Amino acid sequence: MNKIEHIGIAVKNLKESNELFAKLFGKPHYKTEEVASEGVNTSFFQVGENKIELLEASQPNSPIAKFLEKKGEGIHHIAFDVTDIEAEIARLKNEGFIVLNEVPKKGADNKLVAFLHPKSSNGVLIELCQEIKK
Amino acid sequence: MNKIEHIGIAVKNLKESNELFAKLFGKPHYKTEEVASEGVNTSFFQVGENKIELLEASQPNSPIAKFLEKKGEGIHHIAFDVTDIEAEIARLKNEGFIVLNEVPKKGADNKLVAFLHPKSSNGVLIELCQEIKK
Repeated sequence: MNKIEHIGIAVKNLKESNELFAKLFGKPHYKTEEVASEGVNTSFFQVGENKIELLEASQPNSPIAKFLEKKGEGIHHIAFDVTDIEAEIARLKNEGFIVLNEVPKKGADNKLVAFLHPKSSNGVLIELCQEIKK
Repeated sequence: MNKIEHIGIAVKNLKESNELFAKLFGKPHYKTEEVASEGVNTSFFQVGENKIELLEASQPNSPIAKFLEKKGEGIHHIAFDVTDIEAEIARLKNEGFIVLNEVPKKGADNKLVAFLHPKSSNGVLIELCQEIKK
């Protein structure tokens, strides 16, 4: 775990939330990205060395749509930057964490990602992410 | 907003969670602190430039006890480091955020703190914190 890469926040309306968080941070989001495979539209704000990722459902059955339905808007996950995601998956499995993606998948922002189930980590959905080298 | 100062995570048992997060990060917490005025025992982990603060209720009616009862374990708040907390409170009130502490109070880790109500910030409990100069 090198650092917190980003914090993901589930929102109902990305446009309205982009305006709200721009007021909070005193500056606008610097990019948006659709991740069709996850059924999500995202936007990113930079704060220090971290990012805040806003997540809006783009499909009615996507994980974010289900999260919003069940829990409402709020913090969805914490993502940690790792150097070697496959080694971290193996290490954390060995430590007893439940890894949801044993084979990392392509996520937003040019990353390989894997999630840990919140029930093995104090109710916190944890994402591991590794920058894809070009 | 200079940076994310810490992420607060509500836990039922600080001792057990200290062990769990030590496995996650591959290193132990670096300090613990009781904040009697908030009815909370805390521990801190360093990750990059940020901290993870675990929060255990030390009193049955404390805000963390109520959070755990209502929502269970999980992410409780995000704290942002600010240079001038009184100026930020005034700015954010003016932008329409609901500030829960118009006069900042003493929090954990030698900080002056103030919270924004989650209903004015997409369901996210936000803490502003300013280091107390010695």
